[in-house]
Formats: sequence, structure tokens, C-alpha cells
Amino acid sequence: MANSTSGESVTERIVRILETFGTDRTVQTAAEIGRRAGLPSSTAHRMVAELVDCGLLDRDEEQRVRLGMRLWELALRGSRALRLRQAALPFMEHVQARLREHTQLAVLENDETLFIERLSHPHAGANITRIAGRLPLHASSSGLVLLAHGPEELRERVLAGPLEAVSPETVTDPARLRRLLAGIRRDGVVVAPGTVEAVSTGVAVPVREGRGEVVAALSAVLPRATPTGRAVEELRAAAAGISAAIGAHRP
Amino acid sequence: MANSTSGESVTERIVRILETFGTDRTVQTAAEIGRRAGLPSSTAHRMVAELVDCGLLDRDEEQRVRLGMRLWELALRGSRALRLRQAALPFMEHVQARLREHTQLAVLENDETLFIERLSHPHAGANITRIAGRLPLHASSSGLVLLAHGPEELRERVLAGPLEAVSPETVTDPARLRRLLAGIRRDGVVVAPGTVEAVSTGVAVPVREGRGEVVAALSAVLPRATPTGRAVEELRAAAAGISAAIGAHRP
Repeated sequence: MANSTSGESVTERIVRILETFGTDRTVQTAAEIGRRAGLPSSTAHRMVAELVDCGLLDRDEEQRVRLGMRLWELALRGSRALRLRQAALPFMEHVQARLREHTQLAVLENDETLFIERLSHPHAGANITRIAGRLPLHASSSGLVLLAHGPEELRERVLAGPLEAVSPETVTDPARLRRLLAGIRRDGVVVAPGTVEAVSTGVAVPVREGRGEVVAALSAVLPRATPTGRAVEELRAAAAGISAAIGAHRP
Repeated sequence: MANSTSGESVTERIVRILETFGTDRTVQTAAEIGRRAGLPSSTAHRMVAELVDCGLLDRDEEQRVRLGMRLWELALRGSRALRLRQAALPFMEHVQARLREHTQLAVLENDETLFIERLSHPHAGANITRIAGRLPLHASSSGLVLLAHGPEELRERVLAGPLEAVSPETVTDPARLRRLLAGIRRDGVVVAPGTVEAVSTGVAVPVREGRGEVVAALSAVLPRATPTGRAVEELRAAAAGISAAIGAHRP
């Protein structure tokens, strides 16, 4: 009964509707949502009405629809991302106050790097990442840390390619990438100049749950000319602090 | 076809499943979810499997289920809460650095106060609010600001009661509350000692979209003995800054 005639579950359709929203598209009509989600107009109108009734979407006076605060609340209340971010925020603020550059927290999600927090300094340099934004695993310092410490099966799958170049300096040669990842596991840090943008260097370290599993990557984005020693030191100290904080609040 | 035999939509059932998760309950089995959501066991297992397939829930090796990062991502990517929070964060950090107390951002959501950001200082005093946590509108300084500036119909409904006391000093007398709300509209600030907790004073100001509609409340929670003048001044300056930032980034 939960399935449509096409064999797709209602849950899948709801996800497809939610996927039509994004940073650059926060307000749509039900007709636009239907078109973008590939749903028949009557289905789109009915499902949008249901989602509005439940508060997952909000409708304004002009019948345009946005993501509802209720969705935000349900997603965050019991979420690992929020706990991790709450544990990390004071340490990230400290790093940012010292370095005065972008400071970011990222996790591995569905074979990609998902950025769950970013603090930016008004005078900091370029940075294309966004909160709730994604990048391929091999294409940012955070992703390289997550890939280096991720499951071997995932690493082999990524190394098997295709390896897209986000910038001209993204490492896309499998053998070179394999050596880079081994180096990250050995050194506990990556310094990745130009991997995302030619003008920037990403510096990232692993964040562990206690002394065990790597659960996140903590990174800073520096202008290319800035020496990286201090960033490495600050990020390592912060990652150790976050690990201790997560351990203390473990459920 | 989207409706179950009980006449409840699949969307409503999904919301009921998501509602079983919370700050104190981040991991459950499908059976526990079914029991808490009031769903038959077979329905709960099938729907949890669908939600796992879509990434809205994650299942671990012990078959326990958590909220998925994908849900978090979908909820945040196009969200008004995230935009508001992003615009507010630098100003909130400034307030917190100056006052060294809890600094919070709240919005009106379904007749309640929903806290969408909180910065806490390690040495700050007591504070029961949480991110993605709620309080009744009349029961915190933030809620009082949102209620004072909210739709008249909402205000009358809340004033008609019942008005629950969160602490012995929560204002629950309708006539007194009405005067308090009129004062907030006149002064553009509320100082609410003991409304949430006897040991604290809440100070809150409205955050406007440009010069118009109040879209949020910015607040600080001070120890009861602390003078409030500086907090009022800092919060007003920050709220003006946030308004300007929202205006500049309006879609």
C-alpha cells in the first residue's frame, strides 16, 4: 500500500521532492517541484499538500513552498551531526580565532565529503564549500582524511575511478592518490595545496571517537602563500579536544 | 494509494517515526520505533527498511537505527533556519565574546519557541534550552518577543490559555502577560528574570527582516545577579547587524 503503480515507494518520492530544494532554490511552486522531481502534476500537488499538512514543507500566501522548520527540527533533534557539531564548535571557534581562516568539520556520507559546519572569518580567503554541501572524497583535504581512514572497500572503489578533477591540481592519478592516502594514515595530517582551488591550501586532520574510529575531518582553508605549520598544530590540538569531548558525552 | 487503511497518509507515518528520535534517544530498533510510533510491527519494519534504503535513517551492524546524515542534509540544504543562522552566527559570536554568557537565536514554529542556535560559554550559568528544543511562547524571553510581534490571532489564542508555569515566576496571568507583551512592542526588548529558571534572567530583542517583519528573537541568558544594561545594548546592536545581513542576502 505504500507503493505507487511505478513500484517506487512513497518514501522515495518524498526524498525526490525534498531533493528539489537547495541552497540556490529555497522557494518553489508545487508545479515546479513536480517537474523537477519527475512526478505527475496531480501526484506532486497531492504529496506537497500532505507534506505541508505535516509541517515538513511550509506554504506562503502566494502558494509557494519552502522546507518547513519542522523538518529541520526532526532532522536535528536526534542527530549525530548535531552532537558532533556541538562537541566540535568551541574547539573550532578557538582554531578560527587563532588562524582567522575558514575552519570546517566534515563527515563521510554516501561516498562523499559532507561539510556539517564551517566558521568563516570576514577576511578569510576563497572557499567553495558550504554547510550541508558535498565534494568528492579525493578532492578536498577533509575528504582525503576521511578516505584515508575509511573502509578499505570504499578506498579501492574510489581508487578504481573515475577520479574527477575539481581543480587542475586535484590528484586524479590512482597510484599517486594511493601514496597520498598512505602518507595521511602515517602522518595524521594532510596539506593539500590547490586541490579544490588554485588560490588555497587545505589542511585537515582526523577526529577520532575516543582513540578509535575516525568520525570526522577537521580542516582549515588557508591562502596558498600562508605557511601551514601553525594550522597543523592548532587543528591537531582541536581534534584531540573534540575527541575527548565526544568521549565524555558518549551515550 | 498513499493512504493506509487507517486513513493516515504515509507522510504522517514517516513523521511519527522521525518523532520517536530525540536528544535522549538517538538509537532504536525497528520494534522500539514501531511501539513508540504506535505502528503495527510489520508496518514499522517495512517503513524503517524503506527509510534506510533512502538514507533518511541509518542502520548499524547490530540492526539498530539512527537518523541518517542524508535527512540532516536534505533538511538543511535549502532551509530558512540555516540561512538565518548563518547570517546571525558572526553577530552571535561577537555578543558571546563580549558577554561570556549563553547567546541564543529562536523562531516561532507551530505556536512554540524553537531554538535554532545557541552559543554557550564554558563559564556561563544554567540554561535548559537546547538547539532544536522548544519552550512555550510565554515561558522564555525569546518566546515573549516572538509572541509580542506574532499574529494577533496567535496572541489571543495563547492569552486564552491554558498558560503553563515553567518556573514559579513564569507570567501566567493573562492580563499581566498582555501588558508585558505591549511593553515589549513599545520598548523593543524584554528582561525576564526567573521566567525559565529562578537563577537566570533572560534578555531578548526582536530580529527583523529589513525594517519589517520580526523573523527571530535574539537572547542572552544571564545569572540573575548580573546587571542587564550591557546585554540589552549588545543584543540590539547584533540584531541590527543580523537584519542588515539578511537584507543583503535576500533571495
